[in-house]
Amino acid sequence: MKIALLLTGNELMSGDTVDSNSAYIAQSLKDLNLVPFVKKVVGDDLALLISSIRELAQISDVLVINGGLGPTNNDLTSQALAEAMGSTISRNEYAFNELKKWAEPRGFILTESNLKQADLPDVCDVIDNPVGSAVGFRCIYNECLIMCTPGVPSEFKVMVENQILPLIKAHGATQLGTGQHGTMQLSNIITRLRLFGITESGLQDTINRVFPQWPKNVDLGFRVQMPVIEIKIATLGDDSAALNQHWVDKFTEYFSDYIIGRDSTRLTQALNRALLENGQVLTVAESCTGGAIAAGITSESGSSKVFEAGYVTYSNKVKMGTLNVKQQTLNSYGAVSAEVVEEMVKGALIASSSSIGLAVSGIAGPDGGTDEKPVGTVWIAWGEKGQVQSRCFHLPMPRTAFQNSVTAIAMDLVRRQVLGLPTNVDYFSELKRKAQ
Amino acid sequence: MKIALLLTGNELMSGDTVDSNSAYIAQSLKDLNLVPFVKKVVGDDLALLISSIRELAQISDVLVINGGLGPTNNDLTSQALAEAMGSTISRNEYAFNELKKWAEPRGFILTESNLKQADLPDVCDVIDNPVGSAVGFRCIYNECLIMCTPGVPSEFKVMVENQILPLIKAHGATQLGTGQHGTMQLSNIITRLRLFGITESGLQDTINRVFPQWPKNVDLGFRVQMPVIEIKIATLGDDSAALNQHWVDKFTEYFSDYIIGRDSTRLTQALNRALLENGQVLTVAESCTGGAIAAGITSESGSSKVFEAGYVTYSNKVKMGTLNVKQQTLNSYGAVSAEVVEEMVKGALIASSSSIGLAVSGIAGPDGGTDEKPVGTVWIAWGEKGQVQSRCFHLPMPRTAFQNSVTAIAMDLVRRQVLGLPTNVDYFSELKRKAQ
Repeated sequence: MKIALLLTGNELMSGDTVDSNSAYIAQSLKDLNLVPFVKKVVGDDLALLISSIRELAQISDVLVINGGLGPTNNDLTSQALAEAMGSTISRNEYAFNELKKWAEPRGFILTESNLKQADLPDVCDVIDNPVGSAVGFRCIYNECLIMCTPGVPSEFKVMVENQILPLIKAHGATQLGTGQHGTMQLSNIITRLRLFGITESGLQDTINRVFPQWPKNVDLGFRVQMPVIEIKIATLGDDSAALNQHWVDKFTEYFSDYIIGRDSTRLTQALNRALLENGQVLTVAESCTGGAIAAGITSESGSSKVFEAGYVTYSNKVKMGTLNVKQQTLNSYGAVSAEVVEEMVKGALIASSSSIGLAVSGIAGPDGGTDEKPVGTVWIAWGEKGQVQSRCFHLPMPRTAFQNSVTAIAMDLVRRQVLGLPTNVDYFSELKRKAQ
Repeated sequence: MKIALLLTGNELMSGDTVDSNSAYIAQSLKDLNLVPFVKKVVGDDLALLISSIRELAQISDVLVINGGLGPTNNDLTSQALAEAMGSTISRNEYAFNELKKWAEPRGFILTESNLKQADLPDVCDVIDNPVGSAVGFRCIYNECLIMCTPGVPSEFKVMVENQILPLIKAHGATQLGTGQHGTMQLSNIITRLRLFGITESGLQDTINRVFPQWPKNVDLGFRVQMPVIEIKIATLGDDSAALNQHWVDKFTEYFSDYIIGRDSTRLTQALNRALLENGQVLTVAESCTGGAIAAGITSESGSSKVFEAGYVTYSNKVKMGTLNVKQQTLNSYGAVSAEVVEEMVKGALIASSSSIGLAVSGIAGPDGGTDEKPVGTVWIAWGEKGQVQSRCFHLPMPRTAFQNSVTAIAMDLVRRQVLGLPTNVDYFSELKRKAQ
């Protein structure tokens, strides 16, 4: 079933008003396993509205029009729909009575402008609006179910839940019954896997290589939500549940430890959960990330169970004073070195009596790089007392991207350590292969 | 000049991703006195992309296409544009070199998927992307200027400011020359003032009250970029420079110490500059913000000149151990109290030998509130040795919003302190009025 959205209103075009209605109905349509396939937004422009209605009705099974039902001269939906269909407008008695029923208890005197809201295309039926003055209306045109809805989000939401979704469902059932449109699949199964440490293109290349013949009834989608990548596996048909499980298993096999969770799982959540489930309390000593790791962990509620103390030791003086890093270590190896980050972890473990520690020291830039240690060099150390290890990464990118990447990689190393997963993994493999 | 937008990506149709790009370009086009007249959003659907490009190019002078430039099989913009114009695709040498220039310093090995990003319609010119891997591209088709841009918001924004707007301006000038389109005003003077600590509605109310007769040739715009509000003052006409200065002076008079800078100034930049110019070095002791204040300060390059040490003291044990907060103070007043945050500042000043200190302790929620100290209560202390003061705020909002607001208010209090501005200001006054 092909669903189109048409939104109208100058305020949507100027960028002053963020359109939340189309996201709302898209989310609601998921319950019917439907996704709108096209959305058009136009200003208060009669000719453009008319041509857009004709265009979208032609290519869709359902067209939801949103906005333009108000009392002002800019509200053109009723007129545009009538002209698009070659119909005329007249006062709709039911809509008129609804308007009166809305106005009277509020002591509202209906002006000519208000009454315009009861002037509907002759072929339309009313869609009740339980929470506002403007009713919606609907008709079938070119076999397309057209529904006009109010732009006010609170009114729109109530109408979507109570009437638009049931009307779409009923329309879909009719269509399926006639055998003309058989595309509304009610047996979709969707799984969302969340991965960290692999790029979108790396993922795509692996999939192209490992599964060159991609099955038609399995729809694969990617979404990058930095630093996480989401894979959506959607399956259709009678055995879609089994099929979905089959492909989830395949992906789990190939990307195993990169998977941090399902649905909306964040890396910070995955880390905190791993710590909690293994009875670990983490302490963090940060130089180049300047507190971003601690801030990420504590952005999650309940983080006090797994985190007590963080140290932002930006200068060498503070690395020595707070974390007991030795002057000689700094002199011999420099602040960005395995030796210094390992001493930072040890110092933080002692200062905080936490069970596991993490430390980072790097050159975020744009200044401070040398030939030997260019901007983008970072050392990360982690581990429990007596078992501290470290790795070096080269991440030559703008300051903010560098800090975000170091934060994410450092968190993931601790997640892997705590869960007993390999920590020598190739992060963002394309990157590393070349860097070595 | 008629501007159309075409956005592509399944994630935009599902309601999972909110489209911020079209609002951004619409706001930016205001500087040219332009508003997009139609926007279309489609999924990753080649046929629909092709027909949409043809339709929109037919009815517009400028078509901005956004998204679909990435490396995956779902990224179809280049192919769709070529097919819409009856052109073919080949590897663009310039784009290929740009891709290599982007990849090499990052140690990134370009895969076949990546190289697809350099396959452009033959008739297109490249639009440089200074901050990402995928270049944009443009061409003229049916007298319409078509520009394809990356979907990643940070890349899109840079491209809009540096290239899309100038290209539109140049295209408009050509058209103005022919006398066909005469609506673009090119003599605008624009000043952007950045404010912190006042809401958009508070600003609007003050302006309505103080300047009831708003002059027609001065266009005022607001843009909220949390936590900062930007006021854009745009003036037209022959004496627009003097007029602009007049209104900048007026605003500076009325909103004086709320103004943190011009153009894209961030609060973190304003704070760091204030510290630098007054020879101060800040230390931060954080509880409920968990490192976010330190991370904000150190997100700016050059921050090592004004910041050396941060302490994330999430538990009482660490507040005592690291910052020397007294057990008795914690017992008598609780961790969220004037007494404790003031001891935290004093402890941080001693531990770090910084010249000025800042400390926060509050209840971020969702748990941990009491009748006396509900979720959203926070104490902030700041000052130099011997001159530490504190204030309490009630910010009943979700955890992340609370942490962000506390971070911003705390930074602004230090900015004001260092600059000798009042620190007893009503932050977000509506909120406060309501909370009391």
